[in-house]
Amino acid sequence: MGGEREAKTIIPKENFSEWYNEILRRAEIMDVRYPVKGLYVWFPFGFKLRNLIYSILKSLLDVEHDEVLFPTLIPKTEFIKEEKHIKGFEDEVFWVTRGGVDELDVPLALRPTSETAIYPMFKVWIRSHADLPLRIYQIANVFRYETKHTRPLVRLREVTSFKEAHTAHRNWAEAEAQVKRAVSIYRRFYDRLAVPYIITRRPDWDKFPGAAYTIAFDTIMPDGRTLQIATIHHLGTNFARTFDIKYEDVGGEQKYVHQTCYGISERCVAAVIATHGDSHGLVLPPEVAPMQIVIVPIIFAKEKRSRAVLEVCRSVRAALKSSFRVILDESEERPGAKFYKWEMRGVPLRIEIGPRDVSRDECTFVRRDTFERFTVPLSNVVGEAEKALRDLHESIWRRSKEHFSSKIFDLCGDEQEDRIKECVKKGVVVVFMCRSEECGAEVKERFDADVLGEEVGTCLLDDVEEQTGRCIICGAEGRRTYIARTY
Amino acid sequence: MGGEREAKTIIPKENFSEWYNEILRRAEIMDVRYPVKGLYVWFPFGFKLRNLIYSILKSLLDVEHDEVLFPTLIPKTEFIKEEKHIKGFEDEVFWVTRGGVDELDVPLALRPTSETAIYPMFKVWIRSHADLPLRIYQIANVFRYETKHTRPLVRLREVTSFKEAHTAHRNWAEAEAQVKRAVSIYRRFYDRLAVPYIITRRPDWDKFPGAAYTIAFDTIMPDGRTLQIATIHHLGTNFARTFDIKYEDVGGEQKYVHQTCYGISERCVAAVIATHGDSHGLVLPPEVAPMQIVIVPIIFAKEKRSRAVLEVCRSVRAALKSSFRVILDESEERPGAKFYKWEMRGVPLRIEIGPRDVSRDECTFVRRDTFERFTVPLSNVVGEAEKALRDLHESIWRRSKEHFSSKIFDLCGDEQEDRIKECVKKGVVVVFMCRSEECGAEVKERFDADVLGEEVGTCLLDDVEEQTGRCIICGAEGRRTYIARTY
Repeated sequence: MGGEREAKTIIPKENFSEWYNEILRRAEIMDVRYPVKGLYVWFPFGFKLRNLIYSILKSLLDVEHDEVLFPTLIPKTEFIKEEKHIKGFEDEVFWVTRGGVDELDVPLALRPTSETAIYPMFKVWIRSHADLPLRIYQIANVFRYETKHTRPLVRLREVTSFKEAHTAHRNWAEAEAQVKRAVSIYRRFYDRLAVPYIITRRPDWDKFPGAAYTIAFDTIMPDGRTLQIATIHHLGTNFARTFDIKYEDVGGEQKYVHQTCYGISERCVAAVIATHGDSHGLVLPPEVAPMQIVIVPIIFAKEKRSRAVLEVCRSVRAALKSSFRVILDESEERPGAKFYKWEMRGVPLRIEIGPRDVSRDECTFVRRDTFERFTVPLSNVVGEAEKALRDLHESIWRRSKEHFSSKIFDLCGDEQEDRIKECVKKGVVVVFMCRSEECGAEVKERFDADVLGEEVGTCLLDDVEEQTGRCIICGAEGRRTYIARTY
Repeated sequence: MGGEREAKTIIPKENFSEWYNEILRRAEIMDVRYPVKGLYVWFPFGFKLRNLIYSILKSLLDVEHDEVLFPTLIPKTEFIKEEKHIKGFEDEVFWVTRGGVDELDVPLALRPTSETAIYPMFKVWIRSHADLPLRIYQIANVFRYETKHTRPLVRLREVTSFKEAHTAHRNWAEAEAQVKRAVSIYRRFYDRLAVPYIITRRPDWDKFPGAAYTIAFDTIMPDGRTLQIATIHHLGTNFARTFDIKYEDVGGEQKYVHQTCYGISERCVAAVIATHGDSHGLVLPPEVAPMQIVIVPIIFAKEKRSRAVLEVCRSVRAALKSSFRVILDESEERPGAKFYKWEMRGVPLRIEIGPRDVSRDECTFVRRDTFERFTVPLSNVVGEAEKALRDLHESIWRRSKEHFSSKIFDLCGDEQEDRIKECVKKGVVVVFMCRSEECGAEVKERFDADVLGEEVGTCLLDDVEEQTGRCIICGAEGRRTYIARTY
């Protein structure tokens, strides 16, 4: 779309911000030319990638959640009920104040998140302990009146694909167990996308408005800044008290439910693009690649053996079709132009077939991540393709974890100020910190870094050992805490 | 959800409006208790049904359309560009006027439909004839400030699942060919849902604001009123001129594109419910039934042969699982309560297995539409289930077409006023009419009926013969025209 013919230039990833914008445009992920700040258009290719990524998320959630869909509009009367929640969002909410030519009696908020839409219904849905746990999710568009610099998939005024789950439980411990299950679901999700992550408990001053505490996933962008890619909140009984959500327990007593909610936005798509892409364009994990294999016939218009090559290409496509998303590019363009096009779109495996391959009953595989070329007998093209895609996934996952671990600087117990300053420019730094907001502000001041939070785990670590040490600011007892420049 | 235990009452369908509300609630399609007029909540079961129905629509469109997603918010400056279009919508649009505490410089419309969001991008996407035809669709939420009586799935302030397709072509004829293809896609869609339809060309005064002409699908509700369930518009160059969408043709000349757009809302779900449901609840075509088969063990708690029955039930489920959406209801409720529950949810096939069945290596099939019972050998349960579901689909499609044709009164050439008055209370009447708006108003006055439009076809007729006769109002030359009371 757009009909542009691009020069086959290399796009250096070193200038990450430029690279990102170029890739979104050239690989046709999102079009930024929509005439409102912070609103973008999903191109067909980008939307296919989005759908494949969200399919994984849905399949992980469907095991124990029901999918629902709530209205976009929340009456002001409900929206302002939870005091901390409204304070957290009041600067960011779009308000509908007119319908046709009428002023509305009650302004309607465009949901920035759906707690205040969903919980009045939880009140009517939940009566007894038998209705618990209640676990639902929806994939919906949410809106934020962003005044900062906006960026496709990362900071938008309309998040088109916010997956939000909401659960209710009998007590604090059962809600906390759900928080842990959500962490495990999100781990599996990002493992399948081969996107590395840090899991922290956000500091109290940075938790979700209305939550008891917040757990967050962050990944590290190529420029060393972190991007928050998931959050999980234990809500305690805060919203239950506001929206009067009670159940009758086994003994007949009326009790408030304990709640959790957790969400992932289309930042998961941004994370896939930023983590794996290179100077030739997208590199995609095969599971989410809209096109997994492209077959390129190596022929030149006048060559007499062209027909035989095309026939072999078609039979290879036929053999692959039932197991893979495969395309045979029979267009008029030269092979080099085809390579460029499909590399840009991150097709994990290219199969080249030319006259010499045909005469030898072979074809040539080219892997998108390493550009490694190797010959494969036509008789085993399906098995070899399976293996190549599996290898590619493992290889990009290994590579992204290596890169990730090279960007984490564990300075706990050896926190020299100069060293922190130096490392925080390159990635994420782990130091001992207490939980006070003042020390957080001081870290911002001294190191130009935000506090992500206390260590819960990373993609490299399942469990972490509790370790304590002196807070780098005030010297009080502190825990292992991640600090970084953030998006 | 809601934890209500319903009395096993029959819900008579004669009072359609009450029946409809009861079914939506008891079968858990949509919850009407959301605290804003015209906004409703999809229950998990309703949303599964919605997803299965939209999967069919998507699969039909994916053949030649690309899925995209555009922003919800349209700047007023774009929205008001097409004069007729804005006139058609100005009373119905919700306006966002505030972001946080700021007044917005340019108010933003919540899309009531997306022409004015999409066509500014068509302008940048389309350059040459090689970019045409361009065919996209999206499934998105759209908003209408309805002041009339609202009703779930039928008349809402937020249509949560509007499928809208938009296409651009080189000339009038190619756009018209696309209109025909859209008609054919929508026919196949409703055929698969076994929902009967009338296809008409809407009168000029009732076409889509900005269209050259509009083709519409209507179905007949149980009370004889019609429900519009799809529209297809030839836009000519109206929007192309407004949004300056041109292409360079083969000769190098700049020309306006010719456009079409066509849409289906969640009324398709309402049509499935209303067409097939009965006094026991939903009846669903197997292809869209969230649960296609329920297995009910016929056991009573203390019976010693219970274990054998349950074992057989589980092996039957195992046999069916790879081909069908099947559930084995092992809950503590009595068989009768289970029957009621799954009948309400329209499960097409119930398999009962009791001790006597086990001893005979048999089971009992019960069809949801007819309640017909028959014995099936356990050895062929998969084949028999396939057949039963196929038969059920054919049978409800035949029955709904019979019912539909009994509600169409073809009075062309014999249009006595009393007879029209009588028939229009029962269903749809076909008469000769000219195309004037005055005659349309007179029909409304005399018969309390709206003009659907000139005959294009029905689910019973592929092609119609052009027939002319004298307009029932003014006597001028007229065409076969459908009139009806409408939703």
